[in-house]
Amino acid sequence: MENSRRRGRPGHDQNAVLTAAVRLFNTHGYDATSMFDIAESLGITKSTLYHHVSSKEQMLTMAVDRALGALEEAAAEALTSTDPATVRLRRLIRSSVLVLAERLEFVTLLLRVHGNTVAEQHAVSRRRAFDRIVTDLVKQAQAEGGVRADVDAATAARLIFGMVNSLIEWYRPDRGAPESIADTVSDLAFDGLRTH
Amino acid sequence: MENSRRRGRPGHDQNAVLTAAVRLFNTHGYDATSMFDIAESLGITKSTLYHHVSSKEQMLTMAVDRALGALEEAAAEALTSTDPATVRLRRLIRSSVLVLAERLEFVTLLLRVHGNTVAEQHAVSRRRAFDRIVTDLVKQAQAEGGVRADVDAATAARLIFGMVNSLIEWYRPDRGAPESIADTVSDLAFDGLRTH
Repeated sequence: MENSRRRGRPGHDQNAVLTAAVRLFNTHGYDATSMFDIAESLGITKSTLYHHVSSKEQMLTMAVDRALGALEEAAAEALTSTDPATVRLRRLIRSSVLVLAERLEFVTLLLRVHGNTVAEQHAVSRRRAFDRIVTDLVKQAQAEGGVRADVDAATAARLIFGMVNSLIEWYRPDRGAPESIADTVSDLAFDGLRTH
Repeated sequence: MENSRRRGRPGHDQNAVLTAAVRLFNTHGYDATSMFDIAESLGITKSTLYHHVSSKEQMLTMAVDRALGALEEAAAEALTSTDPATVRLRRLIRSSVLVLAERLEFVTLLLRVHGNTVAEQHAVSRRRAFDRIVTDLVKQAQAEGGVRADVDAATAARLIFGMVNSLIEWYRPDRGAPESIADTVSDLAFDGLRTH
């Protein structure tokens, strides 16, 4: 009966499969995780698993898409808005924190992928494209006079997103609502620790 | 002859062994790396490797000590100095960046260790002790009035060290001298991106 319900709701099943796979990838590494491990952790057979997904690589692509899709959406908003670059940068930092807090396991996988396979390489190059958008925004905000010009734009972008990405190491819902963490990150990014 | 020189300089050899081991741990993971892999990457036999080190775990401990020893020294300075907490916090951020830039591969290993073995667990608990020192310093600096009191001290400490620790992902000597990166990190940590 459990099985017939599963067959009847492929969307739901693929979600469960993906969540289990991502958990194993994050714990043991993508390379070290086999289709058998994923099937075992779901209490299903390998042939049932193949009923839902075609390969381990397909799961990586799907998982990384959940993280990158949302981050790229935030970046697209930053690129198309007519607001000043400083405002767009601040909004992109906030949105990225929200994506991380809400899709933590998918972003964790994305940030740990180093990759030799095609799927991993593709994820890395999409991540780099996102980083370039952030650096460009910092440059525009510097030109506009909203962001200090005495720091290298690429270094500033890497450091600020180092702060954002650190959420994968420590964020848990009991450490603050996503909105409140997003405020803290953007406040610290723009104004720093110093008392104003 | 190479071999007799090696035997004659155990300190030098252990350094080479440690560097090779850490490179493999960082690339393939601690679990996935065997003593055979380490020997092979050095072009020596496993029995020659055991002449220098007693176990994989010993190498992990030694490597992690190189990172933690330097970080703990910086933390000890922050604890014993009589300067205001705000000054000590800023100095600890700077010194930590210098340690990361100069011992990048050792700190990379330290930050990736998740651990089930005794050596890994020990490294994780020393890392936590360091984090607590940072959080306490932020609290003292807040009480002193030098650091804004509207952010949670533990969250601020995690975010600022997220910025510091991001160096393991992107730092390379051609991206700036350690001193200059240390200045940028402490400036951004205290004053943020905003033009002053």
